[in-house]
Amino acid sequence: MTDKTRDMLARLNAILDEEDLLDQAAHSVQFDMETLCPVKGMEQKGEVLSYLTNKIFLLRRLPEFLEAAAFLYDARDELDEFDRALVESIHRHEVRTRRITPEQDREFSRIESKAYADWLSAKKASDFSLFAPSLTAVRDTELTRIELMEEKSPVRYDNLLDLYERGMTSFVLDDVFGRCKERLVPLLKKISGSPKKIRSDFLSRRVGDGAQERMARYLLDTIGFDMSRGALSTTEHPFTDSLGPDDERVTTHYYPEMFTSSMYSVIHEGGHGLFDQNQPRESFAHHISGLKTMGQHESVSRFYENIIGRSEAFISLIFPKAAEIFPDALSDVTEREFYEAVNIVRPSLIRTEADEFTYTFHVIIRYEIEKAIVNGDVRIEDLPELWNSRYREYLGVSPEDDRTGVLQDVHWTSGFGYFPTYALGNMYNAMYAARMRREFDLDGAVAEGRFDVINGWMKENVWKKADILSPREWILDITGRELTPDDFLDYLEKKYTALYGI
Amino acid sequence: MTDKTRDMLARLNAILDEEDLLDQAAHSVQFDMETLCPVKGMEQKGEVLSYLTNKIFLLRRLPEFLEAAAFLYDARDELDEFDRALVESIHRHEVRTRRITPEQDREFSRIESKAYADWLSAKKASDFSLFAPSLTAVRDTELTRIELMEEKSPVRYDNLLDLYERGMTSFVLDDVFGRCKERLVPLLKKISGSPKKIRSDFLSRRVGDGAQERMARYLLDTIGFDMSRGALSTTEHPFTDSLGPDDERVTTHYYPEMFTSSMYSVIHEGGHGLFDQNQPRESFAHHISGLKTMGQHESVSRFYENIIGRSEAFISLIFPKAAEIFPDALSDVTEREFYEAVNIVRPSLIRTEADEFTYTFHVIIRYEIEKAIVNGDVRIEDLPELWNSRYREYLGVSPEDDRTGVLQDVHWTSGFGYFPTYALGNMYNAMYAARMRREFDLDGAVAEGRFDVINGWMKENVWKKADILSPREWILDITGRELTPDDFLDYLEKKYTALYGI
Repeated sequence: MTDKTRDMLARLNAILDEEDLLDQAAHSVQFDMETLCPVKGMEQKGEVLSYLTNKIFLLRRLPEFLEAAAFLYDARDELDEFDRALVESIHRHEVRTRRITPEQDREFSRIESKAYADWLSAKKASDFSLFAPSLTAVRDTELTRIELMEEKSPVRYDNLLDLYERGMTSFVLDDVFGRCKERLVPLLKKISGSPKKIRSDFLSRRVGDGAQERMARYLLDTIGFDMSRGALSTTEHPFTDSLGPDDERVTTHYYPEMFTSSMYSVIHEGGHGLFDQNQPRESFAHHISGLKTMGQHESVSRFYENIIGRSEAFISLIFPKAAEIFPDALSDVTEREFYEAVNIVRPSLIRTEADEFTYTFHVIIRYEIEKAIVNGDVRIEDLPELWNSRYREYLGVSPEDDRTGVLQDVHWTSGFGYFPTYALGNMYNAMYAARMRREFDLDGAVAEGRFDVINGWMKENVWKKADILSPREWILDITGRELTPDDFLDYLEKKYTALYGI
Repeated sequence: MTDKTRDMLARLNAILDEEDLLDQAAHSVQFDMETLCPVKGMEQKGEVLSYLTNKIFLLRRLPEFLEAAAFLYDARDELDEFDRALVESIHRHEVRTRRITPEQDREFSRIESKAYADWLSAKKASDFSLFAPSLTAVRDTELTRIELMEEKSPVRYDNLLDLYERGMTSFVLDDVFGRCKERLVPLLKKISGSPKKIRSDFLSRRVGDGAQERMARYLLDTIGFDMSRGALSTTEHPFTDSLGPDDERVTTHYYPEMFTSSMYSVIHEGGHGLFDQNQPRESFAHHISGLKTMGQHESVSRFYENIIGRSEAFISLIFPKAAEIFPDALSDVTEREFYEAVNIVRPSLIRTEADEFTYTFHVIIRYEIEKAIVNGDVRIEDLPELWNSRYREYLGVSPEDDRTGVLQDVHWTSGFGYFPTYALGNMYNAMYAARMRREFDLDGAVAEGRFDVINGWMKENVWKKADILSPREWILDITGRELTPDDFLDYLEKKYTALYGI
């Protein structure tokens, strides 16, 4: 490395060190808003957050930052893999956004805020027409964004997808999701036609917050989440956030008549938490800990939630404790009944309440629709009809209103390209779970609560390089193979064929 | 107001608006550290906090800030009472601190941090000699601070006292505390000699966190704390903090075998919270909401905790709910027994556990000792002996070790002058409670839960001008009288003479 490169790197890092401090302050404020902040305190917290966010924005616009980043990008062959990942990510961001004027940026924010407000009203009134003008404006904003990118794919939608899942294309997704539909549609028909009756009455038995919290803490402890470097809080819509390298926040929500809801949301969020708690220290030191994609992150959370959390082995591990903590709800329930109940397949309208099996359909529907929106293949006003027809086709259910149909998710108020990452996570984790099973007895380790073994394997193989490799390079590095839905489909087929005796 | 004055005021306020945003972010981070932050995340949060604090410090060092502040101080007769209070407070701060060099400032911080660490070790080992060198350094730092003040009192200690209780002097305190001792010492002897037996066995009955939290929320609601503009959390050492004009945070701690501890800490902190929630909007808009003194704030928290919270009227109001929430602990307890138990007088060693009656002695002892330290009338190494002899003299109890004696409080790690404000609060509130009782039936209002009436009176008479008047002007404004301990002593005498039948 030349002296000049070293000097430029020091300059870049000094600014990014400051950005980290501002960013951590912003995360504290935001976390508070999502968990504890009283309703009338929200507006002022929003002001604080805007202020901090703007300070961060200005840091990245400093001439010395841009100069150092540009120099280092040209000199990237001199850098180690961490610094190279950093300057490449700054470069990608620059070529995608630098033609956006400050006025346009403010206008985009305004459109997004209005879309959120309109979506809330429209959902409340269950009337898509109230959201349609804003959604049209969001689509036009996305098209303008794409138009302004200096480097871009000729496939419009791929430019948005790439923002969330670097390097992913609709060519790949069309193939992957096509194969999912091919195998899952007939399988779902068989499941629906199966005479198997799964008992689920006890899932709605009343359980207090205190007991649910004890169970949540037991589950986090069981999967290896480190409470000396993290905390558990409650919120409306569960999420996980890093407030610093040694401060990982998992949140959940306790519903009195759905006690397994918080159990699985905690395992899911705890999976995100484990990923963050076990990233290499170098990721923080080199300011690249934010580079892992949504697909990578969801692969881990769903690995813990589904592949582990909904397995017979895991239920055998935790059932005695669950029976102890929920004595009333589980007094007449067997371990097997509990396992079956948390795996019941029931085609439904709401994505966030979907079971493991039907979840993928919810994502595919959204993917197909948002691609059509971006490519101009559907008129905005026709979305409810398109939405409902797809639900009938893939899941055999039909929304009665817009609220439980096309208006259910908030995501489109801020654009398109995010949804596919939810399903990609399942493909990735089935792929690395398959390798894991070849290397050691995963179910045996789960049944014995040997999360040191499982998390150790994850750390070495899955977590270590997530920030420096693109998802494609990363899954290739872990499994030696390109993305495929086969492992995921095999896993579902094996599990649900056995469960439903079909 | 001249155009120039208007312009300068706008400049000053623009900087203070920015300071508010940074300050609120800092409070969010700090609040998180005190409530939820995991142990290993503390250090990084400390970095974030230092960064924000330094940004605030730098804002107040900007030449345009200092220039505007100096101009406005000279033009203060043109300003309204809010802006005048603001520029006068900036002026006071400037003339006291501007000779301190940045190097000295860093050195002072270093000494304070070391004193805190040494105090922790010394308390753990119960060995004052481990803290003595640091305490000596703290004393010397305070003397240097005084030395560097441009405007100061010839009475050394008064310069420190003034930082916490503007305008207060040891001349006044000596008189006030002297009269307290004169009446309270013989009264305490009578109480101790009284044959009256107060039942207290049920105070240590085991109560779960959930029930204690329900009671805490009921109490906050009862006294009129607005949960749409505030929240309740748990912490190690309860405190109250404003995270913004509409975001007041009350904290408490649930001890399983001291359920009345959280009840009274919540009423105390809730009192601070009511004060903050009911300050005039102008205080925020004019950046003066931080000007109220510790004595003023403690007067309010202790008014709710003691004068109201430990009254027969209040117990009659809340006892039915307490009996419902704590059925096991209170099954065989009468309302009268509960009232007596929360008012039991028991001379003890630890200030924070002291009853309402003996509390003042704990403060007087600390005041007398810290004044002697600052004035050079006692050698640091002789403090344990002085401490113990005062406890024997005033309270008839004697610490067995330094931990429960001279090392019990953290305050001296950051200097002197704070302790008296704890006792001044009781004098102030007894004074305004006396006026209140002349104007309406306070006990009647409490018994009926009419906190709208009580808080309305407080808002109009006590809270409205706390930021713009000095404590002396303020108590004169409320009561028409100078500070006197008489009302407080009359109140104690009447209450405890009746309770102990003496």
